[in-house]
Amino acid sequence: MVVEQGGVTTPLGFLAGGLHAGIKKKRKDVGLLQSIVPAAAAGVFTLNKVRAACVTQNEQQLLLSGRLQAIVVNSGNANACTGRQGDLDAQEMRAHTAKALGLQEELVAVASTGVIGVQMPMDALRAGITACAEVLAMEGSGDFAQAILTTDTCTKETAVQVVVDGQTVTIGGVAKGSGMIHPNMATMLAFVTTDAAVEPGALKRLLARTTDQTYNRITVDGDTSTNDMVLVMANGLAGNDLLEETHPDWQLFADAFRYVSEKLAKDIARDGEGATKLVEVIVKGAATEAKAGIIAKSIVGSSLVKTAVFGADANWGRILAAAGYSGEDFNPALVDIRLGDIQVAQGGMGLPFDEEAAKEVLAGDPVTITVHLNEGAESATAYGCDLTYDYVRINASYRT
Amino acid sequence: MVVEQGGVTTPLGFLAGGLHAGIKKKRKDVGLLQSIVPAAAAGVFTLNKVRAACVTQNEQQLLLSGRLQAIVVNSGNANACTGRQGDLDAQEMRAHTAKALGLQEELVAVASTGVIGVQMPMDALRAGITACAEVLAMEGSGDFAQAILTTDTCTKETAVQVVVDGQTVTIGGVAKGSGMIHPNMATMLAFVTTDAAVEPGALKRLLARTTDQTYNRITVDGDTSTNDMVLVMANGLAGNDLLEETHPDWQLFADAFRYVSEKLAKDIARDGEGATKLVEVIVKGAATEAKAGIIAKSIVGSSLVKTAVFGADANWGRILAAAGYSGEDFNPALVDIRLGDIQVAQGGMGLPFDEEAAKEVLAGDPVTITVHLNEGAESATAYGCDLTYDYVRINASYRT
Repeated sequence: MVVEQGGVTTPLGFLAGGLHAGIKKKRKDVGLLQSIVPAAAAGVFTLNKVRAACVTQNEQQLLLSGRLQAIVVNSGNANACTGRQGDLDAQEMRAHTAKALGLQEELVAVASTGVIGVQMPMDALRAGITACAEVLAMEGSGDFAQAILTTDTCTKETAVQVVVDGQTVTIGGVAKGSGMIHPNMATMLAFVTTDAAVEPGALKRLLARTTDQTYNRITVDGDTSTNDMVLVMANGLAGNDLLEETHPDWQLFADAFRYVSEKLAKDIARDGEGATKLVEVIVKGAATEAKAGIIAKSIVGSSLVKTAVFGADANWGRILAAAGYSGEDFNPALVDIRLGDIQVAQGGMGLPFDEEAAKEVLAGDPVTITVHLNEGAESATAYGCDLTYDYVRINASYRT
Repeated sequence: MVVEQGGVTTPLGFLAGGLHAGIKKKRKDVGLLQSIVPAAAAGVFTLNKVRAACVTQNEQQLLLSGRLQAIVVNSGNANACTGRQGDLDAQEMRAHTAKALGLQEELVAVASTGVIGVQMPMDALRAGITACAEVLAMEGSGDFAQAILTTDTCTKETAVQVVVDGQTVTIGGVAKGSGMIHPNMATMLAFVTTDAAVEPGALKRLLARTTDQTYNRITVDGDTSTNDMVLVMANGLAGNDLLEETHPDWQLFADAFRYVSEKLAKDIARDGEGATKLVEVIVKGAATEAKAGIIAKSIVGSSLVKTAVFGADANWGRILAAAGYSGEDFNPALVDIRLGDIQVAQGGMGLPFDEEAAKEVLAGDPVTITVHLNEGAESATAYGCDLTYDYVRINASYRT
């Protein structure tokens, strides 16, 4: 079901490319992703009150049409807090891409990531888009994945296949993360493609629900970005009957869609700025899934839990303390805690445990922390990373 | 008005002491603070769902009586997540102190700070309390201030005097902070004493309001502790008429009370774990004071703002982004930002500014960041510190 080396061009009819246009010093910084036919599309966008021009423009555009055929992305400059000129530059980025690809402007979405508050170098950007439009290819998926990175240390791509109406349907995805990662309705740039035919309303609902349980369950540093967005394009080339919630294969498709989102979300968490490992916090035995998710995210976001994981210090009291300030109600005296397979607390109190074995669990990757509330049957998982010297180093001099 | 070298025993009729009882390896770990007569008292306590036994017991006790005569504190062990035995130990700590001082149990409050989830070494604690009760003195204020510290690098004490009804009234305070500092209704241990006569209801309201604007406006790491509390004792020995909101000198007293709380809160922020400097974020031009406070705290709590301050990088976009995810509504296009006296953004956009001069501001201590919303007349200040390599070092191996 998982496609080896898969990405956003694994579904039928998608082309991509990426190159160095001169916005960043050396690495690729402009990418294009195109469907050969218009696609049903949906998006979720940052809830930060301070939003980049591209975020607001995409959201308005998708509300009107519900369709997209191409996405243009640059890294190195977020085009956020750039005022009226920033709005005009985002529009021009869209218009120039539409012209280069021979598409209508309203079928092009724009995404930017990088430093905030600096005007976009438009000459370099335009030249880059023109050049990139000429090299789009099915093989360009990796270049696109590189072109959207900032302080990320690796690309994040995946693809899966499921059979719908007897037709193989493929879902691909690509994302970037690293810092300013504490998504609220969306994360810092993820793009999902599929050749399935999906009813636009159903696609929108699926994206919203999946985002809540995947991208919105990760955190690197508690900072919600100005440029977060997830966009999905479904171009229908697989030839299946239109998918919506009443379709017999809907759940199969929704599960595959969730797999892609969860994979990308975990990749973002593992590659958080300065991170040495992925941290998974599973909250079980909760009255509701939402509550389990909020508590899990509170724990995985705690600076004290993150530094303890970095130092492989089995300081489980910090885990319970972070659950306690999540804002959710629960009975601390019922809580059990495990680090990997080692139970360290029962009924809210410490158990004697093998310190060396616990240290080994915390020194591994991923580190799994399980918190059982013993009050219900629902569970949820949140993803994050450790807090290290390198996070401080990277962010003490990001701009200069 | 500020008393040089003042502390909790500067007001009339308060004695204190502190010594090493063996809970910590070397440093003082048990402290006692006593009024020579019963005092009107009030407290605010952590809103963390996971609370130490002492927190819940003090809260219940103060609700019943509204009076205190002594406070016993230990550091090195939080007696949190210690179950039924922890409850019994906190009761015994109270009972043993009452006996050692010859007081009724319900006039003694208990506070603990240190590692979570480890049972209290009661033999050492009892012996320490007995010994400490024998050395209580007006000169013991500094020993008490030391005995309540954990990873703090310095004591935090202050005292001020105002004239009420022609009588000099003194307010003293002591606090500890360092890590797990993101108070919600209270901070990690602050004790305020005064010889003023204050009506208990007025004292309670004053403490709640002052806490919201001082202790609740600081953050070190976003982690709300299990043991936070602020306690105030007013013993009336200054001989003033009973102070309440209708008293002509009430505002004078309330301002002095706020000064003490703000001083301690700033001292806690400046001495945050690993911190090299105090960061003050002033939000001006807001529609309400509460909104200004929430936005200020969101900015001062941002890991990205904190690391940028550590690295003296004038990355003002992070400041606006952190305001944007505060949950409060405002118009980003109206926002002006200053680092010290240097304006770096106007109307939500960057201005050209002298990078070297901005670097100098950020390299100083304290660093003042001013954000003007240009929508109203209210303002508020939040306090925090930078995020440094040392925060990671200290917390990667706190317990081991």
